[in-house]
Amino acid sequence: MAKDFYGELQLGILGGGQLGRMLIQEAINYNVNVHILDPDKNAPCRKLCNRFECGSLSDFETVYNFGKDLDMITIEIEKVNVDALEKLEDEGVVVYPQSRIIRLIQDKGMQKQFFKQNDIPTAAFQLISNKENLYETAIPLPYMQKLRKDGYDGKGVKKINSTAEIEQAFEEPSLVEELVDFEKEIAVIVARNDKGDVSTFPLVEMEFNPDANLVEFLISPSTLPFEIQTQADEIAKKIAEDLQIVGLLAVEMFLTKEGEILVNELAPRPHNSGHHTIEGNMTSQFAQHLRAIFNLPLGATTARTNAVMINLLGEPRYEGLAKYEGVEDVLAVEGVFVHLYGKKYTKPFRKMGHVCIINDDRELAIKNARWVQETLKVKA
Amino acid sequence: MAKDFYGELQLGILGGGQLGRMLIQEAINYNVNVHILDPDKNAPCRKLCNRFECGSLSDFETVYNFGKDLDMITIEIEKVNVDALEKLEDEGVVVYPQSRIIRLIQDKGMQKQFFKQNDIPTAAFQLISNKENLYETAIPLPYMQKLRKDGYDGKGVKKINSTAEIEQAFEEPSLVEELVDFEKEIAVIVARNDKGDVSTFPLVEMEFNPDANLVEFLISPSTLPFEIQTQADEIAKKIAEDLQIVGLLAVEMFLTKEGEILVNELAPRPHNSGHHTIEGNMTSQFAQHLRAIFNLPLGATTARTNAVMINLLGEPRYEGLAKYEGVEDVLAVEGVFVHLYGKKYTKPFRKMGHVCIINDDRELAIKNARWVQETLKVKA
Repeated sequence: MAKDFYGELQLGILGGGQLGRMLIQEAINYNVNVHILDPDKNAPCRKLCNRFECGSLSDFETVYNFGKDLDMITIEIEKVNVDALEKLEDEGVVVYPQSRIIRLIQDKGMQKQFFKQNDIPTAAFQLISNKENLYETAIPLPYMQKLRKDGYDGKGVKKINSTAEIEQAFEEPSLVEELVDFEKEIAVIVARNDKGDVSTFPLVEMEFNPDANLVEFLISPSTLPFEIQTQADEIAKKIAEDLQIVGLLAVEMFLTKEGEILVNELAPRPHNSGHHTIEGNMTSQFAQHLRAIFNLPLGATTARTNAVMINLLGEPRYEGLAKYEGVEDVLAVEGVFVHLYGKKYTKPFRKMGHVCIINDDRELAIKNARWVQETLKVKA
Repeated sequence: MAKDFYGELQLGILGGGQLGRMLIQEAINYNVNVHILDPDKNAPCRKLCNRFECGSLSDFETVYNFGKDLDMITIEIEKVNVDALEKLEDEGVVVYPQSRIIRLIQDKGMQKQFFKQNDIPTAAFQLISNKENLYETAIPLPYMQKLRKDGYDGKGVKKINSTAEIEQAFEEPSLVEELVDFEKEIAVIVARNDKGDVSTFPLVEMEFNPDANLVEFLISPSTLPFEIQTQADEIAKKIAEDLQIVGLLAVEMFLTKEGEILVNELAPRPHNSGHHTIEGNMTSQFAQHLRAIFNLPLGATTARTNAVMINLLGEPRYEGLAKYEGVEDVLAVEGVFVHLYGKKYTKPFRKMGHVCIINDDRELAIKNARWVQETLKVKA
């Protein structure tokens, strides 16, 4: 569809954070008119779009009115009013990813049932309505309790170690999930356009910050055995096809100590596990998302070199106007790319930016990344 | 200086065309607040900045008022009111490139005298006040007449073949220049920051569209002999140092059939001959310009692969609302990056975008670029 739209296409993005910001950086190349809806009047995208509207993403009227004169809507966050998106779809606005997929993914319980119904390997689970159900669950202790809705970036997730701890469990409808003793967290980003073309980015490996439960360190491409890479790739493609999604889908997986792959969760949009693609791969995840939703040919995803991505998180104990330390130092090193997200205020573990470190020498890329991590700080 | 400014720096750009647009794409990574002044209310940057002001770049009051509350000003076009910039500099606004350099480069006559005074190789020339002087010039026919001021993109340049043609020559103060029988046009982009660090991008080779006198085809890196590359590189560095410029400087040169390098002209800003650096080099020219004016360490300029850049010019005979043909076709080829400039209207030879074609196989990059050139068209 995009062919006739260059310069005229009115694209709405629900959410105006860093993902929207990086999507805009790429959308500029396609002459797209971008409209942003975000509840934060200081959102990172506020000054970079044709129209910025400050409003709730969960409110039916707000989302519907924002979208009704647009050609196309996409998201950079799943927590949006899906009823409004459905109505917009009915009225002819193109919504990618489709509203039914956002609805499915908003609910971790429905996500898990989808995995089960489609033979997608995932950790054993049970859905519960309230805390009381935990006393009867068949999932052995310790296990994870995850709120079915509104959890993100490690929020809404609790590890329950003993019956005594059930007291402190979430009261709301949840997913109880077997604790996976994983070797590594891995991810594949897959894209699908409306023609049905499907393309995956090379597998990446991640390390998490145990305090913040956020991706802290990502390496691309993975050097795991070929069979693991193929299997992860095939799982991601199968999910994209089972869902018939149009757009990008990040598939986060566990690699268990036994070499088994279990799908953890999905994000139907550009994702933190794909930021390295800007410098590291032939096509960036943001370009790929646009190609997919505009039904253009998908771009080559080949890794151009080794890339390590680190999130630049607000330092613990600092809150207020953001100040950046060490930017000059890290920019002096070859292959270091700093992306700041335009957030005025920092707080502990807030995602303030990311850094991509590339090098043809993989060990050097990792070494430089560790050093950047120690050197670059966001304080207040 | 930039260190303390992230998120707070107010950067003005004189001109809101494609160069400003690509500068903004990069400035987003540094949390810079961008203010744009451009006479065209439909300028490519209009919706991508903190503040867009529609006004004349040549008017003293307009430029002065635009700049007086900013921290820093840079340019994406030389034709700006330099008196206003000088006053702003006096009042403490940082202007990079410095106003004296813009003044020098605005006048092709002063530029040539600067080359002469600094032993920079350039074609023989004479400055004339009016057409009559042409009858007495010592420069042998045929020669080039170039207006001292306001010429750009091939405008303000005439080839005079015979005494009879002097009739049709420009009346205004001009530069008469010996016709250079060149083998190739080549260019080096050099950057210098306020600490005095100087860094050059690898030499590139260009082909011009003879009808439009615009760069049409550029190859990076050059495969010319090492001595030529070194010599071109040294000339560019010397000019940056002689000028003590802060920012980017594009140095366009002729390589004569005798293997001599002659400097043609300078542009103190990101330049058409550096667009390939976005995908082709470790640091893009836009990132490098920002690093230079913010007095940050300059980035590595290494070529990551072979890159061919072609300008996407409005097709002859078409004028009006731009329509793009062949975008889907070219995006289906690996290593093809389309940059559209957000211009609503096309006219013959108007720069509507550019395409960068990368490939580790140089011949394939060139072949793909030729094919893109035949396939991608801007019509109305």
